[in-house]
Amino acid sequence: MKVLIVHAHPEPQSFSSALKTVSLEAFREAGHEVQVSDLYAMGFNPVASAADFGNRANPEYCVYALEQRNGVTNRTISPDIQRELEKLMQCDLLVLNFPLFWFSTPAILKGWLDRVLVSGTVYGGTRFYDRGGLRGKRALVSVTLGGQEHMFRSDGVHGPLESMLKHLLQGTLGYTGLDVLPPFFAWHVPYVTHDDRVAMLDAWRERIALLDEATPLSFPSLNDFDELLYPLY
Amino acid sequence: MKVLIVHAHPEPQSFSSALKTVSLEAFREAGHEVQVSDLYAMGFNPVASAADFGNRANPEYCVYALEQRNGVTNRTISPDIQRELEKLMQCDLLVLNFPLFWFSTPAILKGWLDRVLVSGTVYGGTRFYDRGGLRGKRALVSVTLGGQEHMFRSDGVHGPLESMLKHLLQGTLGYTGLDVLPPFFAWHVPYVTHDDRVAMLDAWRERIALLDEATPLSFPSLNDFDELLYPLY
Repeated sequence: MKVLIVHAHPEPQSFSSALKTVSLEAFREAGHEVQVSDLYAMGFNPVASAADFGNRANPEYCVYALEQRNGVTNRTISPDIQRELEKLMQCDLLVLNFPLFWFSTPAILKGWLDRVLVSGTVYGGTRFYDRGGLRGKRALVSVTLGGQEHMFRSDGVHGPLESMLKHLLQGTLGYTGLDVLPPFFAWHVPYVTHDDRVAMLDAWRERIALLDEATPLSFPSLNDFDELLYPLY
Repeated sequence: MKVLIVHAHPEPQSFSSALKTVSLEAFREAGHEVQVSDLYAMGFNPVASAADFGNRANPEYCVYALEQRNGVTNRTISPDIQRELEKLMQCDLLVLNFPLFWFSTPAILKGWLDRVLVSGTVYGGTRFYDRGGLRGKRALVSVTLGGQEHMFRSDGVHGPLESMLKHLLQGTLGYTGLDVLPPFFAWHVPYVTHDDRVAMLDAWRERIALLDEATPLSFPSLNDFDELLYPLY
């Protein structure tokens, strides 16, 4: 299996970075081929803009999704996007590893999603959810946060973290057709003991070892929404 | 009233940019004082990192939130953050105006949230939701998207857009204590007629005129979660 780990934490000594290292080792030990896109280390540019396109389908007015299609077809899309897109299309499992910033990804990772999940290849028209361009691949999200687990119970102050992350789990990863495995959450990280952190790293290693037994999250099937079959785009 | 419009679209001729211009004019005509942070035009840096701090509370290990507190207290936080933070703290109404990218904000706007909503001033410890640092101010989100409204009905393929945006409406804006007004959605923008777009601009103008009659969204109150009163951070 080919694994792409996209990692986004500003502090290389962070617990999030330790999760990245553990997963890299665990996948390699299991015989898988692993690539890591460490976005902070790469100085990845997260800003989607007209500058992403070496030539333009329409130089007068930038429709970003249409320029993505043109740029991929003509291989004039920015080389940093092209490289990440190739890693993505070659992988069987995409791992997003990040600290929770405002109940979502850090901006540098949001920009990776904005720029690399290109229209045409990854999604487009009625090619989304179970007809998305990344069908057959899997995704796994690992998140560190300061909040405590009880805050995210159904009756907790924030409600389930999966609901806060619906835009990512369903609206992004599920939308592209990926089978999204249950996310791994490391709770209350800055406030727990060293032993607690070691236990969380062990739990993460265990999750990786048992990946094939995990049931993906359930998302809409386009078969249930016939009106969407008529091309809208 | 002082209004801060934070705008994030890569194409200055876009419909999203037209919404920004309409709101700027409508607020000014109503006698309000308006500032615009046009993030693309400013070349705003969205990447939260150790480089945001002129000196460091801990030069060996960067805990971003703790460095934010130190940087604000000692006025050594990056000048671009300081400027945006002052605009934010002076405003009575924060307007976020953006195109939907992956059911969320473009990365450049996510980075504005990551970097400008600083710990200590805006939130911290048990100061969130109705005890957040931005209590007494209001927020209004205006979003353009390609999707059609029927896709976002309760029985639509995606479910309500407000649920996709829970991380922003509740987890970010509500979390900081803002009164979050019902969002304005401009549906199916790239595919509708010129007249439809004019009608949407009129509807937006109308929404702004009737702002004081709008009931804010309902979010958790910390009074209902007594266990959170004991300082955790």
